[in-house]
Amino acid sequence: MSVRGSLVVISGFSGVGKGTVIRQLLESEKGYALSVSATTRGMRAGETDGVHYFFRTEEEFRRMIEQDELLEHACYCNHYYGTPRAFVEEKLAAGVHVLLEIDTQGARQIRRSYPDALLVFIMPPDAQELRRRLTGRGTEEKAVIRERLQRAAGEADVIEEYDYILVNDQPDACARRLHELIGCQQYRVSRNAEQIRRIRSEIKAFESV
Amino acid sequence: MSVRGSLVVISGFSGVGKGTVIRQLLESEKGYALSVSATTRGMRAGETDGVHYFFRTEEEFRRMIEQDELLEHACYCNHYYGTPRAFVEEKLAAGVHVLLEIDTQGARQIRRSYPDALLVFIMPPDAQELRRRLTGRGTEEKAVIRERLQRAAGEADVIEEYDYILVNDQPDACARRLHELIGCQQYRVSRNAEQIRRIRSEIKAFESV
Repeated sequence: MSVRGSLVVISGFSGVGKGTVIRQLLESEKGYALSVSATTRGMRAGETDGVHYFFRTEEEFRRMIEQDELLEHACYCNHYYGTPRAFVEEKLAAGVHVLLEIDTQGARQIRRSYPDALLVFIMPPDAQELRRRLTGRGTEEKAVIRERLQRAAGEADVIEEYDYILVNDQPDACARRLHELIGCQQYRVSRNAEQIRRIRSEIKAFESV
Repeated sequence: MSVRGSLVVISGFSGVGKGTVIRQLLESEKGYALSVSATTRGMRAGETDGVHYFFRTEEEFRRMIEQDELLEHACYCNHYYGTPRAFVEEKLAAGVHVLLEIDTQGARQIRRSYPDALLVFIMPPDAQELRRRLTGRGTEEKAVIRERLQRAAGEADVIEEYDYILVNDQPDACARRLHELIGCQQYRVSRNAEQIRRIRSEIKAFESV
């Protein structure tokens, strides 16, 4: 009915496997695109501009914010990250579902500009697994672990702002459930305003006959 | 994750085939139950008490309203119709999805008591088909047709109160889409309050270690 793609926000605790689930979905199903973020942090070994990130200077990034070229943006560890609007808009208009792997702050910004966006929070299968992923293998600095735990606690506080929770027990099963969820979006009333408008005017036309 | 069943409201214009879609779903999938309405209208040939309706006197019906035994109720053509609460509650608690075939007024009452209910509006495939179904084959009284058209116009005015629209192009395909929609309900954040609470307390426990 609706030909426009769905905008899908994927969030979840550090290490929960969001990236793997997304990769699985992109590999197994057609009609999806992953949004590439812009960032001011330096390019790392193995990264490619325009594939992993759009690498930008702070000046360029600030200009993008001013000219409203970003759907959302945030700052971590003194670096900016943001979602370029043009790519997302272009794909949605072409009927492609766009996946955004962003945090809870970004999700909130997206919700404001796209009330119809689908917000999905990926959960770990159990607490032990979450602990392992958050605290690492004991080789990391305490300060790093503490920061990660605080961030997870902050994220857990706002899960209610999301639409759905998916448990990442197995990445392929989780990707399949995500695909089903996204498939159902086309039936949302808010996505079918044109069809509703049409049926109303048709019923009115019958009445006048 | 959540073991409770989903409460699913099915509405749609007169003659759109809601009943056929529901029957198709009940036949092809397990874990569903159709709510049986109570009514004060007389039993017709071929109808069975407790199967098609719970046939009640007006006095009995009014007592059910007073004792809050109905989830919703409405009056048409001088007869009362309502949804008995006990059956719905029992099935939901047993993890069974309960289908309610009710009108837009009833849907609104359900939404108030069950914010988590899934409200689905079934649409005709096209205007010609809708016209045929609403106006009949020219053998019906004009007053009946006029009333049906007015009612359809009233229903069309409140479609935005529903969550999803499904087009009944083919009853089996429509039932399959309905099944998918209902299957996704278990992932809704509002259905997983307990899991969210647990993960929060677990993260807090990690922090204190």
